[in-house]
Amino acid sequence: MNYTPGLHVLAEISTDATHLLADYAPLRQFYAERIGAYGLQAVGEVFHPFEGGGFTGVICLTESHLAVHTWPEFGLLTFDVYLSNFRRVNDGKARHLLEDTLSFFKATRYTSHEVRR
Amino acid sequence: MNYTPGLHVLAEISTDATHLLADYAPLRQFYAERIGAYGLQAVGEVFHPFEGGGFTGVICLTESHLAVHTWPEFGLLTFDVYLSNFRRVNDGKARHLLEDTLSFFKATRYTSHEVRR
Repeated sequence: MNYTPGLHVLAEISTDATHLLADYAPLRQFYAERIGAYGLQAVGEVFHPFEGGGFTGVICLTESHLAVHTWPEFGLLTFDVYLSNFRRVNDGKARHLLEDTLSFFKATRYTSHEVRR
Repeated sequence: MNYTPGLHVLAEISTDATHLLADYAPLRQFYAERIGAYGLQAVGEVFHPFEGGGFTGVICLTESHLAVHTWPEFGLLTFDVYLSNFRRVNDGKARHLLEDTLSFFKATRYTSHEVRR
């Protein structure tokens, strides 16, 4: 495995702003703006609300994907961004997207992991 | 972070069967069958072919998501499955889906990581 396409950043994020975990519309708009600002390109997305509360959102990028799953009942979300380096090194953007997401959700604490792959 | 929703399995997989990395239709059908067999539920998906070859496929599940990105020019794909344990423990299914994927792509070698989250 000599070719390593990119960097995957995973995080588990706690927040008291549980309204942001219940409705995906503000996050969808926020990511659309951020993706444009970073010069990334979306090629499709799925946002799905759950009856019991919370939602799943996945945005496919030419550079790979971004995924959020929320659990309002636990004040918790999980975040993934995986950006390949096909045209340019995107590691910095992956870390910035984590920072953006922590800020958007007004994170009170989080854990994160990086997987070089 | 006391609540840990589930298990995320990541893998980088090499194969000589590069035709399987170029066309997403067989994989899409394979996963639809496997998702049904495991009693998982898809809530949306994006499959996107790239002009230069390869594709991205993401399937959103009520239990979280499954994602594949391929690079035929390197005989390589990356695989992610993240299954939450909201209704029942799905760790075994996440590992089985990796095994299924290795088999489908006739993997010659692979690396994998597990993130409990």
